[in-house]
Amino acid sequence: MDDRPIGVFDSGLGGLTAVRSLRQILPEENLIYFGDTARVPYGGRSRETLLKYARQDVRFLRSFDLKAILIACGTVSTTALPTLAAENDLPIVGVVEPTCRRAVAVTKNRRVGMIATLASVRSGAYEAQLQKLDPSVQVVSKPCPLFVPLVENGRFAPGDIVIETVAREYLEPLRDTGIDTLILGCTHYPLLWDVIHGVMGPGVTLVSAGEESAFELKRLLTARDARADGARSGTAEFCVSDRAEDFERTASLFLQEDLRHAARRIDIDQY
Amino acid sequence: MDDRPIGVFDSGLGGLTAVRSLRQILPEENLIYFGDTARVPYGGRSRETLLKYARQDVRFLRSFDLKAILIACGTVSTTALPTLAAENDLPIVGVVEPTCRRAVAVTKNRRVGMIATLASVRSGAYEAQLQKLDPSVQVVSKPCPLFVPLVENGRFAPGDIVIETVAREYLEPLRDTGIDTLILGCTHYPLLWDVIHGVMGPGVTLVSAGEESAFELKRLLTARDARADGARSGTAEFCVSDRAEDFERTASLFLQEDLRHAARRIDIDQY
Repeated sequence: MDDRPIGVFDSGLGGLTAVRSLRQILPEENLIYFGDTARVPYGGRSRETLLKYARQDVRFLRSFDLKAILIACGTVSTTALPTLAAENDLPIVGVVEPTCRRAVAVTKNRRVGMIATLASVRSGAYEAQLQKLDPSVQVVSKPCPLFVPLVENGRFAPGDIVIETVAREYLEPLRDTGIDTLILGCTHYPLLWDVIHGVMGPGVTLVSAGEESAFELKRLLTARDARADGARSGTAEFCVSDRAEDFERTASLFLQEDLRHAARRIDIDQY
Repeated sequence: MDDRPIGVFDSGLGGLTAVRSLRQILPEENLIYFGDTARVPYGGRSRETLLKYARQDVRFLRSFDLKAILIACGTVSTTALPTLAAENDLPIVGVVEPTCRRAVAVTKNRRVGMIATLASVRSGAYEAQLQKLDPSVQVVSKPCPLFVPLVENGRFAPGDIVIETVAREYLEPLRDTGIDTLILGCTHYPLLWDVIHGVMGPGVTLVSAGEESAFELKRLLTARDARADGARSGTAEFCVSDRAEDFERTASLFLQEDLRHAARRIDIDQY
């Protein structure tokens, strides 16, 4: 048994959907979340800049005595995870590998779609991982750059003409390729589940990155006998690098629960 | 006569609309643009961080032998301009003061609207400047957080249901307050001129931040007899702090011309 907390970080608040999954799948674990809201978005930044930011995020989280880290940021998972794993002596789980393993398990026609930010699509990391797991799988990727700002501005309700129009433009060509599985390769996208499902139809299985990472972490902690005491409810602490005032509203959106916690602001440049 | 270049900087590429105005208003001038794309957006950062960044931006630009600097970033104009002006022995023009002076000059009913990013609206800088110029002016401000990502994704054409819907939601309540003048307080917004004009109607005069700064610079250089040789066309050089690969596409968008220049990437941390 190990009651030390799990660290979770993302470039912003999108990673809170992974916190939501962790609270459902590992309700007894203590969590510390860091959202680098002062430097969001990471997508589009260079490899070197991303590695520098990710190292600072990890250094800040490790100022707590952690037992594991979940990288809830697709961009960092696809560009910096191997380096971070080599530099740190604790388990680090990203969003890419667990998600790809799930997609390969559920696809029947071996045609898998992947939507994400431009940077994540460009990295080719999901494609490479899927090919590694099953070379016969055909992958169709599509960047959806407007999904993140639209979600962050509350435009994710089915029937909203703005999100519906943008979603149809992005997803209809993808649907027409005949995929039967679609990876939501960005932690913001679970909020668009209904809209995306509406465009893709019942024949396409959606696989959410954050959720699969939470399952992966559960397996990993169980195998190491490092789960927290199951008799109690875990706590959650939230830190951000920019103004904390708007945190409750946005966090309630991503966690889909009425949040009573405030966030603490920290200076990430000092890490 | 003074053929030395004018330096222009912004947190990202939005400031290129100011370059566009400069090329129209001062076509003979040589320009050097720096976009701090590795650290965009500046809005929301602390005063100290902003001053540090702005000083580095100025130091980099002054590695060239400049005759003047245009700060095409609203956030820096409102927080760091007096300090930068005191520290540097060359003229520095921002975007806020010239724009407010123009708005106060054109309004007839003393009701002025201002749209910008959330950070610029929160700073209250435009409101304070307008009040200083004319205490009888009533200011109505409105953040339009989706305008920047929509413009950057090419959604600024009149008739596009996405931008039209978002613009109507933001601007109709503003129009209904009875303003006769609207400040476009973000360097991305000139690309939305037609859409904004369509919602606001012919009774509202639009005042664009970048354009007024270019006029201010023209007055200033003329008064100092420091204009470049009018017989030739000025050159433009572009530098960014993050990946330069996408620069041509985005810059062509903001400059509204087919750009043949590539951008050079520089390490801003060294300045």
